[in-house]
This record gives sequence, structure tokens and C-alpha cells, in this order.
Amino acid sequence: MEMLSFASDYMEGAHPAILDRLCETNMMKSPGYGTDPFCESAKELIRRNCECPEAAVHFLVGGTQTNATVIDGLLAPYQGVIAAQSGHISTHEAGAIEFCGYKVLELFQKQGKLSAETVRAYCDAFWKDENHEHMVMPGLVYISQPTEYGTLYSLEELEALRKVCNEFSMKLYLDGARLAYALGCESNDVSLADLARLCDVFYIGGTKCGCLFGEAVVIPDPQLIPHFFTRIKQHGALLAKGRLLGIQFETLFKENLYQELGKTAVETADQLRKIFTEKGYQLVYDSPTNQTFAVLENDRMGELSERVQFSFWEKYDESHTVVRFATSWATTAEEVKKLETLL
Amino acid sequence: MEMLSFASDYMEGAHPAILDRLCETNMMKSPGYGTDPFCESAKELIRRNCECPEAAVHFLVGGTQTNATVIDGLLAPYQGVIAAQSGHISTHEAGAIEFCGYKVLELFQKQGKLSAETVRAYCDAFWKDENHEHMVMPGLVYISQPTEYGTLYSLEELEALRKVCNEFSMKLYLDGARLAYALGCESNDVSLADLARLCDVFYIGGTKCGCLFGEAVVIPDPQLIPHFFTRIKQHGALLAKGRLLGIQFETLFKENLYQELGKTAVETADQLRKIFTEKGYQLVYDSPTNQTFAVLENDRMGELSERVQFSFWEKYDESHTVVRFATSWATTAEEVKKLETLL
Amino acid sequence: MEMLSFASDYMEGAHPAILDRLCETNMMKSPGYGTDPFCESAKELIRRNCECPEAAVHFLVGGTQTNATVIDGLLAPYQGVIAAQSGHISTHEAGAIEFCGYKVLELFQKQGKLSAETVRAYCDAFWKDENHEHMVMPGLVYISQPTEYGTLYSLEELEALRKVCNEFSMKLYLDGARLAYALGCESNDVSLADLARLCDVFYIGGTKCGCLFGEAVVIPDPQLIPHFFTRIKQHGALLAKGRLLGIQFETLFKENLYQELGKTAVETADQLRKIFTEKGYQLVYDSPTNQTFAVLENDRMGELSERVQFSFWEKYDESHTVVRFATSWATTAEEVKKLETLL
Amino acid sequence: MEMLSFASDYMEGAHPAILDRLCETNMMKSPGYGTDPFCESAKELIRRNCECPEAAVHFLVGGTQTNATVIDGLLAPYQGVIAAQSGHISTHEAGAIEFCGYKVLELFQKQGKLSAETVRAYCDAFWKDENHEHMVMPGLVYISQPTEYGTLYSLEELEALRKVCNEFSMKLYLDGARLAYALGCESNDVSLADLARLCDVFYIGGTKCGCLFGEAVVIPDPQLIPHFFTRIKQHGALLAKGRLLGIQFETLFKENLYQELGKTAVETADQLRKIFTEKGYQLVYDSPTNQTFAVLENDRMGELSERVQFSFWEKYDESHTVVRFATSWATTAEEVKKLETLL
Repeated sequence: MEMLSFASDYMEGAHPAILDRLCETNMMKSPGYGTDPFCESAKELIRRNCECPEAAVHFLVGGTQTNATVIDGLLAPYQGVIAAQSGHISTHEAGAIEFCGYKVLELFQKQGKLSAETVRAYCDAFWKDENHEHMVMPGLVYISQPTEYGTLYSLEELEALRKVCNEFSMKLYLDGARLAYALGCESNDVSLADLARLCDVFYIGGTKCGCLFGEAVVIPDPQLIPHFFTRIKQHGALLAKGRLLGIQFETLFKENLYQELGKTAVETADQLRKIFTEKGYQLVYDSPTNQTFAVLENDRMGELSERVQFSFWEKYDESHTVVRFATSWATTAEEVKKLETLL
Repeated sequence: MEMLSFASDYMEGAHPAILDRLCETNMMKSPGYGTDPFCESAKELIRRNCECPEAAVHFLVGGTQTNATVIDGLLAPYQGVIAAQSGHISTHEAGAIEFCGYKVLELFQKQGKLSAETVRAYCDAFWKDENHEHMVMPGLVYISQPTEYGTLYSLEELEALRKVCNEFSMKLYLDGARLAYALGCESNDVSLADLARLCDVFYIGGTKCGCLFGEAVVIPDPQLIPHFFTRIKQHGALLAKGRLLGIQFETLFKENLYQELGKTAVETADQLRKIFTEKGYQLVYDSPTNQTFAVLENDRMGELSERVQFSFWEKYDESHTVVRFATSWATTAEEVKKLETLL
Repeated sequence: MEMLSFASDYMEGAHPAILDRLCETNMMKSPGYGTDPFCESAKELIRRNCECPEAAVHFLVGGTQTNATVIDGLLAPYQGVIAAQSGHISTHEAGAIEFCGYKVLELFQKQGKLSAETVRAYCDAFWKDENHEHMVMPGLVYISQPTEYGTLYSLEELEALRKVCNEFSMKLYLDGARLAYALGCESNDVSLADLARLCDVFYIGGTKCGCLFGEAVVIPDPQLIPHFFTRIKQHGALLAKGRLLGIQFETLFKENLYQELGKTAVETADQLRKIFTEKGYQLVYDSPTNQTFAVLENDRMGELSERVQFSFWEKYDESHTVVRFATSWATTAEEVKKLETLL
Repeated sequence: MEMLSFASDYMEGAHPAILDRLCETNMMKSPGYGTDPFCESAKELIRRNCECPEAAVHFLVGGTQTNATVIDGLLAPYQGVIAAQSGHISTHEAGAIEFCGYKVLELFQKQGKLSAETVRAYCDAFWKDENHEHMVMPGLVYISQPTEYGTLYSLEELEALRKVCNEFSMKLYLDGARLAYALGCESNDVSLADLARLCDVFYIGGTKCGCLFGEAVVIPDPQLIPHFFTRIKQHGALLAKGRLLGIQFETLFKENLYQELGKTAVETADQLRKIFTEKGYQLVYDSPTNQTFAVLENDRMGELSERVQFSFWEKYDESHTVVRFATSWATTAEEVKKLETLL
């Protein structure tokens, strides 16, 4: 019998509309490094979606690369970046931020989220410390939307974070690796325009949201990071055939595909959560997006893993484990049904 | 009238066989980060082509990224990398090697090539200098095949470089961004197996040789760079959907496509050089590969640039300029004919 | 009235014996960079004191510099250094470790100390995590003796840490900025020879223990860090007139001065703790060394600070503060008496 | 018979006036990290000598450290530093600049000096290159006064360099490791006030000019490098007992000692050059400062080296060698006389 898979949201190639467009344009000639008309058009569409006509938009290949390049662009050498202890840059980027010379200042989180209060308390203590000139100055706050736990910042929470950044002259950067699954979520009240208004930089994730690869970095104030093109190159993050990124993001934003595919994935995840709950499984984290975290009894987990792929998340207790089921634009109702029969 | 283009060898998407295969496999599910069966198969094909069954093969996205990641993996912190003054890492990578903390020791070149004698003289002087412990120790020699000037190292020249590396306990790394155009060249006498025998690391370029993107790093001694996977991640160079690299290189090496497309490009370049010579243009550099460097009178260059794209290379004298015409797997005999009528 | 000062243990120049010796030797000529006879003699004395005749000994100028240079020498690029959250490298070195590209993995401490259990649990979780190749590998454990809170590791605790380092192939590095005050402490059961047996690298602090400046790095296995001289230079940490370091450490270790001055400082600190306790002040941390941490009522602290210098340490509660009183080789019984009248 | 030594200008401890003052102040208590009254007074004296009352002055320990810390403070990450191929940062700092992430753009020199024309031609070519966004932007010019060859920039030459820096929005940084020997030289027409007017940053060398150690960094515009204190700390270059630097520079600048000791050393060097010339030795480089470069026949060099220490500089031809004789504030007329008898 075929294996079901809910292991991640990047198990296929690309959304078919993207692949079609890549085929269609394949033999057209264009100059390299993002100076092609596809990129121009994609940038314009993104600016329009963000209601931010002045924004600089840059396309990079992957998430860790984007985080390292942007954070390196935003920090002064004597500064560090505040992040949740569960933040992707804190845990799963192999020290890419430190490799660039910066400390990640890891703060306590709840449900994967940093609160404005936590950030304020930290900064307050820093600036009041008479030895703060011997310490790493907080210069930037890093958050992800959705978080690594699938949870969402509300507009109110984001505005509070913006406020604390202003109070302490810090910048705000939002990692949108899975942003489609926030935008496609009914309970989400934060639009792209809100992000452009509240963040100094954010990125619209492509890799985990239907692209072959690619992340679109939005910098509302185009003067913010001087010579960002050269810095992307210096980080080894400049794609020679930049058009591939333009073509993909043009497809995602021409007819609202990005939001649509996010919605599809969230719907199957909602269905999954309903099934888990009905069958008496405990869910952890209040994730309304495409990731679902369930507690499985260890033996049950072992059996299930022979029929369906999912991710180990963390130990719950001696006899139980938290596991993650991810849906994507590619997950079908049929796959969810099949999973239901196995639970 | 349509513009002709010989501006670079990466103006299209991918070779059609690659795109077909990407479409064919698009909805198959596979795990991320290069742990998929496509990568396994591509690695095995490359090992076989290199006659090096033990080699570690890693797929990265682009050339600058590959150079930075490999060189960072090969050097000790107190060492630097020897390169030709015209080497890609010396000039056009925005300081990516220095960003990783290493000095590029730029030596004199001829026709884009480093000679064993030049390297030996430098190392000899270094080790005899009584202050050498205050200086950057040469630890690695970087060369490219073909070079940035389209020229080729002969097997004899490569063996001489290997010898000098052995004499001074240095490693040898070869940048094969355009390797297909060396392998496809009649006068080339260096095979993939030779490279695997003579280099500590080399990479087989995909981006400029028919792929959407991608470079295959070959490490004949798989123990050479410990934890290279983590280092790739740390450099932001780990592609989430690693399968895309596996699929492309599998297609290139399954039925000799890589060598074939190189051959095609070199044939059109040979045709181009014949035309230039017949029409009385001077060629500079002895390039037998897909890049042709011609001297144009400045006014002539201006006129021509309205009908055909090519690259400015360097000033020749007050009234002449060296320009580059690149062919690729996608260049047609028809395009060459059209260019002939314009010269 | 003159201000009393217990603000730090480096408020004077050098111990008079050191200054005398600097004057005596001033006009002798010697070669630079530590290749002089003073350094040779000092190294030999230190090797003898450490009962480690093969050890490499290097002299650097200051503590942060030493930590950065040694840790950079010990870690592979894919590794990070474990430290207590209160460790000097975690808090008060302005990100010097991250500047070199490494993550500080900050773990929970008690009394400023890391326990072997805490380290083992962390490493165990790391190696069992199926994503650990995407994470920073723990490669080194950093501890300080005495700790930043004045406390001491017992021999048993150190041996337990060594054991956990062995289990996970990690190195152990001990920061001895105030080591004289451990060695001079009655309850201390860890000798220099123990440190040489248990640590991969440790340093004997001079700056805070009677020198003008200087830290002696001891590497029991002299092959451990190749080309350490060049790396010291690269870090900007190589003193041109290296003899100054040799002269100072020769003086400290010729006739046991290092241990003696440590003992003197601890005796005045013991006296101080007795006074505090008798007068009903609460002491925090079990420091048996030259630093004493007392809780003062905020108003009392304000008054006292007009007559005596001490360091703010941290808020205790709304109305109380923890402050630090440091003694040194230069502190006199008379100063302690004067302080007693003020408490 | 005693060995004569002209091997370097840092073979003794400190000028006796400095040592006296260190003894005198030894038991005074002062706060650390340069916040003491000695530093304040020394800074004020330096500002006055530079006729630059607003300048920020920072004291560091050594030259390589100062170069790395200042250059790191002045460059943006996408920039590199122009230097002569013979510049100290190009050759003898073990890659300390690259360690901080920056490329040294090494240009052709004459007599150890960079000309404004050479710099202009390089920058011009850079900015005209259509690929310059893929290259390292020149952001700073590094020069030394005197140069590594003992030669001096004239005021006119310095003004021309300032002009080219202005043209290309670059900064100018002058390494004054041996500045006393320029200031003490009759043919020198560049004052400290000129340096403060023409350079963005320069440093007044102490280590090679009579101090135990120490370099005084002068930043005429105090806003130029934000949080420089923290960056000094991050580089491991912040001396705990900063007073030692204050005391030394206060002594050097209180009664013109710095210029005086420079003058003394140049006078003995002049005497030396007279002797060499009279005895028919060839001098290379037009050094009017404390370093003298003479051509010795190889056998003669061998004999001489048994009686007097000097530095190997470079091979002149198969049978001759260029060697360096350095004088300092400590060199006596008697030593010069003795050398005369040996030549």
C-alpha cells in the first residue's frame, strides 16, 4: 500500500500553474541576476498587493539564506537580533546568523510567539545596565508568521511589537516562510499591507508555499539597506537566472494564487484537526494554519508511522510524543480521508 | 527586427530534457534537503562518470555560493587561497571569500591560467620568509576550467599544479562553472576522471551548462570536509527541495547530455571564430571553448550593439574594445548565420 | 574624606614586585613577539607549576581577547560553545565570540556553575534530535574558575564535566581570569596540575591578579591548536614587546607570588564577609573567593555609595539590590576596617 | 663581545620617563576601561597637539589590532580597503583584515607610497565597470606614515590623496605606527594638525615610539564610528587597566617627548646613512626616518650578522641582499660608532 505523507509542506515540485509558466517561457532570452522583465512584473505585483508602491523587492532562493542576508543587512556590528527561543534562526539554521558575526538574543516565548512585554523587559534591562556598552545591543526583533508552531500574531500583537521596536530604536523583521498559510487562514487579521506598514523588512515565502524555491524580500523603505544587491551576491544568494524567481512570483500574485493555495492547505488542516479532536487525540499549540501538532501514544505512533509520514516534534512525556502533520497546496481531501481511516 | 543575443550562456531557462523531467516528476513526493532518490541516482551517475566510486557529491545552487562554501570547508583559519588575478573569486564575487574570513592571494596569470611555476615561486618565497608566521599561509589553489578567458588547462599543466600543491601541502580546487564547454571541446585532454584524480574538490557546473541552476560538488575523498552538510546549511546554501538538483543532474548524466550540449555550444563558437577571423577581426585569448573574445573598433561596436547583445570585456586601446560573444547549448546555427550578416 | 574602593580587583597598576622587575629589565634588548628569554623562563615556570612539561604556553593581553582567540582555535566552524547563561562570554564580551562566527549555547546555571548533568542533558537531546545536522553542534564547554559569582568548581565537579566532554567528544576550556583567588582559597581543592590534567586549554589570569595586564594560556597538548601563533596575530592579540608578559609571569611564578597574592585577597574578603554577616546583611552566592555579594536596602546603598565604591550587580527586589565588593592583592586590612565603620 | 642591535625599534621596555610615571602612579586607584583621569588628560593633550578640540581619542594596545578595529569601524560590509602592496595590512597582519570580512585591494606602490593617480585610476575603472555591483567597492584608503620603507608622504601628496578620497566618497586612514619618526624628521612637512584635517582616522603609534605598548586613535569627527567603545571590546582590544595607556600618552605629549624622541632616533639614523654612503654601500628607498635600507654583499652580510643584529628585508640579486637597520629613541651615538667600526 502506498505511504501517505504529511511530513512537510515542501514534498512536491511546484504548483502546476508555476510549472506551466516555466515551460511557456523557457526558451525566451533574458539578462541575468534579476534584471529581467519577469522580475520587474513580479515586483510590481507584490508592491501592489502590499499597497506599498515604493517598496524594494528582492528575490532570494531559500529561507535560511534570506534570514542571514537580511539580518546581516539590518544589524550594525555591535548589535544582535532578538528572537524567540523557538525561532528558526535560534534553532535550525546551523548558526548561520552567528556565522555572519551576530548574536541571537533568545527570549522566552509562548505558543512560538514573542510578546511585546517580554521584549520591552529585556531592552529595558539592557539600557539600564551600567555595563551595557560591554554587551550586545538589541538592534532588531525577528518574528515568524505563522510561527514555527503554526500560531499567528494578531494585528494587535504586531502593533505592540512595532511600538516596542520604536521605543528602543530597533527594527522589526518578519520571516514569512509559510506566509500563504497565514493569509489563507480565516482567523488571521494581518494583511500584506499591514506587514508593509509595520515591518522594516519581511519576506513572502515561496519554497513552502507552492514554488520550486524562492522567497520575496519586501523592504518598504527602499533606502533602508544600501547596496543590498551586492550583499546578496556576497552571501552567495544571487541567482544567475533570476528570471526563475520572477516567473514564479508573478504566477503567484497575478491572480491571487498565493492566498488561494494557502486557503486550500488550511482547509485540509482544519479538517485534520476536526478528525483528531473527534477521535480524542490531544492537540498542542493553537495552530489555525497548515501545521497540526498532536499527542500520540508512543506505540500508536510506531504503528502509524508504517502507513503515514509525519514529523517527530518533541517528547510529551515518557509514553507520549508530539508529532506534526503538515498540509500544503498539494494535499487532497482524499489523502485526509485515508488518514482518517488510519487514526 | 529581433535582437540577436550572445551576451551570456545563461539567458534561457533549462535544456528541454531537464524541463520535461521536472514536469514528469512534479507531483511525486520526496523528502527534503537532498535526501531523495533523485539525488541518490544523480550522485551515483556522477561518481561513475568520474570513475570515483567513493566520492562524496553535494549539490548547491550557484557558483559564488559553491566557491565560498567549498573554500571555507577546505581552508584552515590561518590560510588563504591562491587564485589568478583574473579568477572569479578574485574579481566578481563581491568579496564572498573575504566575507568568510579568508584572503585571496592573487597571482599573475597568462591567458587566465596560473602556472605551476608562478605558484611554486610564491610558496617558496612564503616559506623562506622569516616572518611567515605573521603572514597568510597559502593553503589552497583555486583554478577554473575553462578559465574566465575561455582557455583550458592541459592535463600536463594540471598535473604540474597538483605536484606543486603536494610539495607545499596545499589543496587543489577547480571551479567548473562552464565545465561542459571544456569536456565538449576537441582540444581538451582532461576528463572527469582526471579531475577526480588530481583535484581535492571540483564542481561540475549546471547553471551555465543547461540547468535552471545547480552545481555538483565532487569530493573524491569523502572524509575531506567533515560535516559538509551542516556547513552548506550554515552558508544558506542548502536547497529545501534538493530533488530539483538531483533531477537536473540525473538528466544531464544519464545519457551523456552534459558532454553533448557542451559540444554543441563549442561547435557554434568555432563557427563564430571562423567568421570573425575571415572578416579580419582580431581575436584575443586562445579560447577553444564557448566564449570568443574579439577586438572591435569602438564605432563599429556601437552600431553592432543595436542589433546584437554581447558583453563588454575590457578596453583594448583608445579606439578599440575587447568584447565577448558566448554561445550555449541553446545557440542555433541560424543565429550564427544572422550574426555573420551583421559583421 | 577619601573614598574607599571595593569596585573591582583591577584598580591599581601592578604588584610592586612586578613593577620592580619591569624597571630592572627596561633597557635590556630583546626580540619581539614573545621570542625573548623572559617568556621562555616564564613558560618553563608555568609548565612546572602545572606539572605538565610538554604544555604549550602563550601569553595574551586581556581576557575577552584570550577567550575569543582560544575558542576560535578550539571550535570547528559547525560547532558552538556551551557556557553558563551567566558566563563572561555569554554576557559581557560584546559578542566577541559571535564576531568570530560561533554560537554561544547558553545553559542554565546554579551559583554561576554549569553542572555535568545540565551539559549531558543538552548534548543528549542534541544528538538524538533527527534534525541535528541543521543545528549547531556543541563542541566545547566553557567554564570559569572562580565563576563570575565568585564560586568554585570542586575537583569532583570538574572531573564530572571532563567526563561528559569525553562522552560527547567535546573539549573543555577554563577561563581563569581570577584564578589566583581560587588557588589562594582554603576550600579550593583544584590545583594547577589538576587543571592541566582535566582541561584542553585553560588560562591563568594576570590582569585581575596583580599584573599590569596579561593572561597565560596553557595548552597541555601542544599540538592541539595548529599555528596558534599566527592565529593570535590574526586576532590582533600578539604583543610586540612580548617580553612584558614574560617578565610579569616570571615574577608571579618564580616564588609563588601568584598563590600568595590570591591568598591575601581572599583573607580580606573573608574578613569582609564576617563583618557583613555580623551586621546582619544577607550574602548571596556561596563565594569563598575575593568577591562578596551582599543585599543592601536601596536607601542604605545610596548613602554608602557616597563613601565607598562597589559594583551594582542586580536588583534583588523592589527595595533591595545585590552589590559586589571585590578585594585584591592591594586591599589592606585598614581599608576593611574603615569599611566596617561605614556599614 | 656584546652584540650590537639595530634589528627593530621596539627592543627595549619603555622610555624612562614613561616608566617613572608608571611607578609614581602605581598604587593610585582608578576605574577601568579608559574611564580614568589619566586617559582624560592624555586625550586632551592629543586633541591640543592635533588642534582638533572635538576629536574622539581612543587608546588601543597594538598596531594590527588597531588597524583591524578601525578598518572594521570604517568600512561597510560591501566595501574593501585600498592599500599599497607593501602595506602592513597587505602583508604582515596574518589576514587580520580578511578575518573581519573585508578585502584588501592591493595597489602598486613606489617607495612604499600610494599615489593619488594610482588610486584614482583604480576607482575610476571600478565605477565605470558595468559589473561593479558584483565587485568589492573601494571604501577606504589605508596609508602609513612613515611607510613600511621609511619614506614619507609630503603634505602635497596627502592632500592629493584626500582629494581623490573625496571624489569617490572614500575615507582616508593613516597608520602612524612610527609617526614619531616622521614628526621628528627635518624633511617632514606634515603636522599632527594636518593629519587631523586630512584623515578620517589616524593613529599615533606608541609601541614603536617609546611606550611599553599602545596606539592612540584619533577620530576628528567624533560621530564617525558609532559605539566604537563596544566595537573595541568586541575585537578583544579593550584594555582593562586603560590607565596604563593614558599614563603613557600623557607622558609623551605633556612636554613634547614624542617629537623629541623621534628626532633623536632620526639623528642616529642620519648618521648611520652617512656612514653607509661614505663606506660605499648602496642605500635603497629614500628613507629620511629611523629605518635605513642598505645593500650588502651576501658573504659580508653573513660576517656582519655575527656582530650586529639587523633585519633581512629582501633579496637584491643572486649575490646581494637588502637589509634594514632601525634606530630608536634608545639608540646611542656610541652604538652607531661601534657599528661604523664593523662596516
